[in-house]
Amino acid sequence: MTALTTATSTPLVVAFPDGDGTMAEILGGKGAGLAQMTRLGLPVPHGFTVTTAACREYLREGQEPAALATELEAALRRLEASAGRSLGDPVDPLLVSVRSGARFSMPGMMETILDVGLTDEVVTGVAARQGARFAWDSYRRLVQMYGRTVLGVDSAHFEARLARARADAGVTTDQELSADSLEEVTGDFRKLLLEHAGEDLPQDPREQLHRAVLAVFASWTGDRARRYRAHEGISEDLGTAVNIVQMVFGNRGRRSGSGVCFTRNPATGEPVPYGDYLVDAQGEDVVNGSRRTMDLTELAAREPELHRELVGHLATLERHYRDLCDVEFTVEEGRLWILQTRVGKRSPAAAFRIACDLHDEGVIDLDEALCRVDGHQLASLLHPGFATGSGEQPVARGLAASPGAATGRVVFDAATAMEWAARGEHVVLVRPETSPDDLGGLLASVAVVTARGGLTSHAAVVARGLGKTCVTGVEGLEVDENGRRAGLPGGLVLDEGDALSVDGATGEVFLGSRDVVPSACALAIRSWSHEQARAPYLTHADPTVRSVGRLLAHADERRTAGVRANAETPSDAHAAREYGAEGIGLARTEHMLLGDRRVLVEQVVTGNERAAALARIEELARVELEQVLEEMDGLPTVVRLLDPPLHEFLPDLVDLEVGTAVARAGGTPDLEAERRLTLVRRWHEQNPMLGLRGVRLLAAVPELVTVQVRALAEAAASLKARGLDPRPEVMVPLVADVCELTGALTRIRAEVDDVATATHEAVRVPLGVMIELPRAALTSGRLAEEVDFFSFGTNDLTQTTWGMSRDDAETSFLAAYRESGTLATDPFSTLDDIGVGRLIRLSVQEGRLTRPTLGLGVCGEHAGDPDSIHLLLAAGVDYLSCSPPRVPVARLEAGRYAVMSTAGGATGSDTR
Amino acid sequence: MTALTTATSTPLVVAFPDGDGTMAEILGGKGAGLAQMTRLGLPVPHGFTVTTAACREYLREGQEPAALATELEAALRRLEASAGRSLGDPVDPLLVSVRSGARFSMPGMMETILDVGLTDEVVTGVAARQGARFAWDSYRRLVQMYGRTVLGVDSAHFEARLARARADAGVTTDQELSADSLEEVTGDFRKLLLEHAGEDLPQDPREQLHRAVLAVFASWTGDRARRYRAHEGISEDLGTAVNIVQMVFGNRGRRSGSGVCFTRNPATGEPVPYGDYLVDAQGEDVVNGSRRTMDLTELAAREPELHRELVGHLATLERHYRDLCDVEFTVEEGRLWILQTRVGKRSPAAAFRIACDLHDEGVIDLDEALCRVDGHQLASLLHPGFATGSGEQPVARGLAASPGAATGRVVFDAATAMEWAARGEHVVLVRPETSPDDLGGLLASVAVVTARGGLTSHAAVVARGLGKTCVTGVEGLEVDENGRRAGLPGGLVLDEGDALSVDGATGEVFLGSRDVVPSACALAIRSWSHEQARAPYLTHADPTVRSVGRLLAHADERRTAGVRANAETPSDAHAAREYGAEGIGLARTEHMLLGDRRVLVEQVVTGNERAAALARIEELARVELEQVLEEMDGLPTVVRLLDPPLHEFLPDLVDLEVGTAVARAGGTPDLEAERRLTLVRRWHEQNPMLGLRGVRLLAAVPELVTVQVRALAEAAASLKARGLDPRPEVMVPLVADVCELTGALTRIRAEVDDVATATHEAVRVPLGVMIELPRAALTSGRLAEEVDFFSFGTNDLTQTTWGMSRDDAETSFLAAYRESGTLATDPFSTLDDIGVGRLIRLSVQEGRLTRPTLGLGVCGEHAGDPDSIHLLLAAGVDYLSCSPPRVPVARLEAGRYAVMSTAGGATGSDTR
Repeated sequence: MTALTTATSTPLVVAFPDGDGTMAEILGGKGAGLAQMTRLGLPVPHGFTVTTAACREYLREGQEPAALATELEAALRRLEASAGRSLGDPVDPLLVSVRSGARFSMPGMMETILDVGLTDEVVTGVAARQGARFAWDSYRRLVQMYGRTVLGVDSAHFEARLARARADAGVTTDQELSADSLEEVTGDFRKLLLEHAGEDLPQDPREQLHRAVLAVFASWTGDRARRYRAHEGISEDLGTAVNIVQMVFGNRGRRSGSGVCFTRNPATGEPVPYGDYLVDAQGEDVVNGSRRTMDLTELAAREPELHRELVGHLATLERHYRDLCDVEFTVEEGRLWILQTRVGKRSPAAAFRIACDLHDEGVIDLDEALCRVDGHQLASLLHPGFATGSGEQPVARGLAASPGAATGRVVFDAATAMEWAARGEHVVLVRPETSPDDLGGLLASVAVVTARGGLTSHAAVVARGLGKTCVTGVEGLEVDENGRRAGLPGGLVLDEGDALSVDGATGEVFLGSRDVVPSACALAIRSWSHEQARAPYLTHADPTVRSVGRLLAHADERRTAGVRANAETPSDAHAAREYGAEGIGLARTEHMLLGDRRVLVEQVVTGNERAAALARIEELARVELEQVLEEMDGLPTVVRLLDPPLHEFLPDLVDLEVGTAVARAGGTPDLEAERRLTLVRRWHEQNPMLGLRGVRLLAAVPELVTVQVRALAEAAASLKARGLDPRPEVMVPLVADVCELTGALTRIRAEVDDVATATHEAVRVPLGVMIELPRAALTSGRLAEEVDFFSFGTNDLTQTTWGMSRDDAETSFLAAYRESGTLATDPFSTLDDIGVGRLIRLSVQEGRLTRPTLGLGVCGEHAGDPDSIHLLLAAGVDYLSCSPPRVPVARLEAGRYAVMSTAGGATGSDTR
Repeated sequence: MTALTTATSTPLVVAFPDGDGTMAEILGGKGAGLAQMTRLGLPVPHGFTVTTAACREYLREGQEPAALATELEAALRRLEASAGRSLGDPVDPLLVSVRSGARFSMPGMMETILDVGLTDEVVTGVAARQGARFAWDSYRRLVQMYGRTVLGVDSAHFEARLARARADAGVTTDQELSADSLEEVTGDFRKLLLEHAGEDLPQDPREQLHRAVLAVFASWTGDRARRYRAHEGISEDLGTAVNIVQMVFGNRGRRSGSGVCFTRNPATGEPVPYGDYLVDAQGEDVVNGSRRTMDLTELAAREPELHRELVGHLATLERHYRDLCDVEFTVEEGRLWILQTRVGKRSPAAAFRIACDLHDEGVIDLDEALCRVDGHQLASLLHPGFATGSGEQPVARGLAASPGAATGRVVFDAATAMEWAARGEHVVLVRPETSPDDLGGLLASVAVVTARGGLTSHAAVVARGLGKTCVTGVEGLEVDENGRRAGLPGGLVLDEGDALSVDGATGEVFLGSRDVVPSACALAIRSWSHEQARAPYLTHADPTVRSVGRLLAHADERRTAGVRANAETPSDAHAAREYGAEGIGLARTEHMLLGDRRVLVEQVVTGNERAAALARIEELARVELEQVLEEMDGLPTVVRLLDPPLHEFLPDLVDLEVGTAVARAGGTPDLEAERRLTLVRRWHEQNPMLGLRGVRLLAAVPELVTVQVRALAEAAASLKARGLDPRPEVMVPLVADVCELTGALTRIRAEVDDVATATHEAVRVPLGVMIELPRAALTSGRLAEEVDFFSFGTNDLTQTTWGMSRDDAETSFLAAYRESGTLATDPFSTLDDIGVGRLIRLSVQEGRLTRPTLGLGVCGEHAGDPDSIHLLLAAGVDYLSCSPPRVPVARLEAGRYAVMSTAGGATGSDTR
């Protein structure tokens, strides 16, 4: 700690013994883990970390910090002393790895250079002590990684040369290449460096090290890394640390090997260590899944001593970190080295189970357990699965790498995945294995299937993080990428575009599309909500479902925000209540006027059979609203008056133009169609979204307000007469100015009063306004004088704040913006904090200033998005209203928000 | 002053000797004027004012202030004492008028009751002293006005009864009715009161007075008054004062009369008193124009003594008010009484001339003179007139009541005027005379023509205020309102819908449409701007033009804000410079790609002859931009990159759908049209205004940026090579997020640099962003990091802030909103201060915080609107950019803003 506590500024270099696990800010996640493990006495190779501060200065100033070279040299000397070996020693040299390690894990996104310290002179010494093949393979790797990372030479050149060497030798893997062949390859690699970069591998090991550090710094700003950060919401400003660690080798024969393991099962959460081990291999070989690994049970059988030591270290780590940890380890000639640890990624199911188990084990309290899960994870558990018992047989099986079930059309490369997804296809990405280059394709796909790789392979880790269905290590799957086809066990062939169904919970793959069914969690939640008092979730057979139930119940206990649903049919209302909604925050009245019933609005507007149409609209609304209010007995139901543009209720202009023109050209004009065409032309708008809709339409055709409100008031009165407790509320949409609002409110109040007089049943009807235009937000102080509540319509508010229509924008430019990185996230999915969020905060503040009791809800789709929920609750809204299946997600996140905001966010473990 | 200074709260009643001209806030304009004239020793009848505070409390609480009755009685006793007569005295009674008088003049909008104090008993006394006819005519008027105003009986009932009396008597005017007939009418009027309101005229004069006061209070909230205030921007909260004044009678024979006059000519500004006088008449008879008046010259000839006294009082008033005043006066049996004064309304031409004359007379300084005129007035002087010398003969002549020239279709009632105007027609309203009921029609018409009335008639006063062309008192015009036709001199007949041309500057009326020509002011301004150093405006023959030139020059001297023009063709740029623009704030690049050239954009988008289309676009732009930059040599020219939605450049979808369908139905498919249809469908958007346009289109088709910027840079380089001083700037439209902006800026900079390298001419090109979406305003701090300037596109910013498209909204609901009073003003015409204005203020503050040197312009249409200009400059913008003909208006208003903001607004005379 000396370096940190006595230095007047952040140190540039910190040796492992001087750091600890709390210093991830400057040491990065990997460096902090290595330092902490060193402190815990685990067998960690010697090393030190160049801090993120050094990287940030390098990136900011375009040159390295003045003191870096000196500090690097001092740390290196200390490393040499403790390792008892020196860099460049021709007899028994120190070799080091140079690895990136940022604050938040960015798996595979950045650069690594191994075997730094090998030179023409050193390689001879290594060959003499450890064999020529090992020496030249290591040197070959160094030249390749240095060439690519430091000098920017395209990997393809190296791969081509290796392929030629394999062909010349008549072998299929690099491991089968001889020392001579590798020496020859190494020589040719160095020619590639000279040819493409104009320089050779430096023969000064310290220069190798120094330039490798700077290359890792620079890799922070690479395209792949940037895109990953944009997707994950990681700040561009953090920079990466660089870890310089003494090399240990897993590829030194049968008593060597490398492995990756978890303190618990990261897919199921089962409290048993879980991992993969590969004999005579370096770490990359485990992660990229190119060879079959053995699991820990097998390791225990074959190397009981090693297994016992490893499991002991895992226990030490979990005790310290109080959470699931993963480690990378290497065994060099029988000696175990732990190379890395971090809080491990896990599947959504595992997240819930681990959090509850850790609580039951007395490690964390329930608040912390709640913060260990999130709404994205819960949402993925609520996804439907395939119907079981249909007797369909899988055509292949692999590892259940990320649960969920999905059906889509097969593609074999990331580019095609993105292209097809952009045009609205559901695609399943099928790959031999995935690499960071495939990230775009993973994001675009509904599921990923790989031929190779275990549960810790790139595909598995990334898919779990994204909540995508994933099956890895499918035996018998042979992907012919160029031929755009794949072979399956039993001689089956899969062509690009074929339908494939993937079950990430079982690892099964099916040909064709399959029907999906609700998740066990969703079914359980819906069954509980009627009898929550008895905590029925405690007795559920499935430990994941049980954990979800416990944490959801705890979230309900903690949260202060209400959760309602957007629902308008009796069955939606029923589902909403089952999912735990405490009311309806948005019942759209237009749904009962679409389809064939559009003609009713047309008749009202044109005056053709007007009275009959109005009566019919009123009757339809009365019947349905009475059922909805009955379902929601005792809970508030916010009914929004007619909102869509008028044209949605009218016949299609183009259809009519074409139909009438063709009829006229044929000499038999269609007079009825001509009449309707005149009407449609009269009301046609260039931009209906900015036209006659919402309160504007209600001002133009006030009877539409009258009948809707009367229907609602009569429905409520009828229920009240039956002894029920209906709680209707009415909301006016698309208000820009207070005068529009007061006009509508006057009509609503008059109608409510009339019904009360006629029925002798006085039902209180709170009135509200939707805040869905910037001007409504900007004039909230004035609007709040008139109403009982605001409800933020974040979809439309996003639309006008950004000046883009959701429907048009997606295909015309928004998809391209996300692809090019112009927009990191879709503002229609995650609340745009600095634009739309700012308007909401302003509206909340100024509305409450006018009327301290003002109700504040959100009924746009953001109310069901976990990230947006925290922004909305921080802005001060009272309740969230989302689609019924999203209600549990909103409940969970609202509970997490309450815990995290009370604890100042300190309790929450942010695993990024 | 006692009442005001010693009372702990605002007094309810103030006697004339206790008030003065500064107290309009509580006494209203009329009350303050009466008090001031009393102080100045003018012959004002005795009286007192019930204050606006009393009215406000009455309207707020729904009942009169507790102390009102007591204060009213005290003031009445004082009035009786000073007048030497008592209310209700059967022998020599005091009669009073009860008139509204708000803070800001609302001519004819509110209620008046005359002859209060007459009862069955009193009328007998009056008849005995002053004649039965006079007594019964007065009593008839009281019953009528009381019935209508206090009891709400429809005027039509009274009018019908009077018409019957005239018919019975075989006479055409009420003046010819005998005392007996009037007594009979009065009795029937009282039956009408009983029949329609259930009560009679109170026989207690004090009750008449009291109820008349409350009725005037209530008239503040009448529909007409509300609409007038909404149009004039007068606050609803002010309330009206009520003036109780001893009656004097102008209808007591040949030595009596009433008149209205101005201290100078209100139409031309000529410094000679101007007015109308009517013998043996009450004031209303003068104002409603029902009889021909004599002017002051005639009065001087007939009543030299009276004329001398009147002119003396006019001089006293103008000395006191330091401005044009108007007065209403009555002569009762040879004795002159001044009944009202105020700062007089005037024509735009008169406003300029009077302001300059008052300065030349040493009454006001040039700053104050500048504040006495405004941009609306200047704008109306810049309106074109009819071509002269075409030999066309007017079909009728009247008084030149409000200058300007307009052509439109004839309508004969306000309702038709509003209806036709709403569908886009230019209408000329032709009426026998106008009343406050016609206000809606006046607002909707381009010109007003009346058969009766002088320069001070309702039509003339209102039209001048609105800047509408107006001709009154057209001899020989006979309007048959029911027949929807009018007779003209010489037997000509005018039917509804006929075209009519009206010259408000000459009073001439022409059949048919006439060509219009630029105004003398506009021509003069354009000729001066090339030689302003010599102050050529001082020598112009027309005193109005001379005055405009002097005040415009003074405004230029005072203003700190720049004024640029929106212009893109060389001829627009030329005009802009002539009108005094100091640069171009908005050159739209799309104009050169519309019409036949739309196909070029289509070719670029489809890749069909793409390279050739791009080259052609670049060449078109280069040639035109070089001419524009040459016109603007030495001045900045802001070029906006392509902004409109893509669909504006593509063929019409409906046309193609219909064309191809008809061709297919006919068995001969049009393959080329089918191909284009596929393209158009591909790019079709539901809401193009919210779709692929501006920076989004530029991101999708970057070559469109490239060629436009290259053309601009090459044009500038070519001019620079010729020794000129081109100052191009480039602006990126429709930015919502900073990443969109940086993408476009990178391309622009690269292109500018390339041209600089190729041409060896380095032209600095400042870069800017249009702030035209709420999100751009909300993220201004970030955007300002990237650019040299912001330009507020207030049209589009209004569109998205309000969520309404200008084109659609106007016909679908905006016109109806204005008509119903839901919106007082059109936010597309006058800046919406609390919504759009708030975003602009926020953007200015946060942009400047990031970059103190940030340039801030406005290029929406609001930059040419006088009211909006003050809001924009107060927000902190640097320059305004409007259409070339509006440039002088912006110069004038920017100068006024500078003077008024320096003086804290105290210098400006707000005449409302």
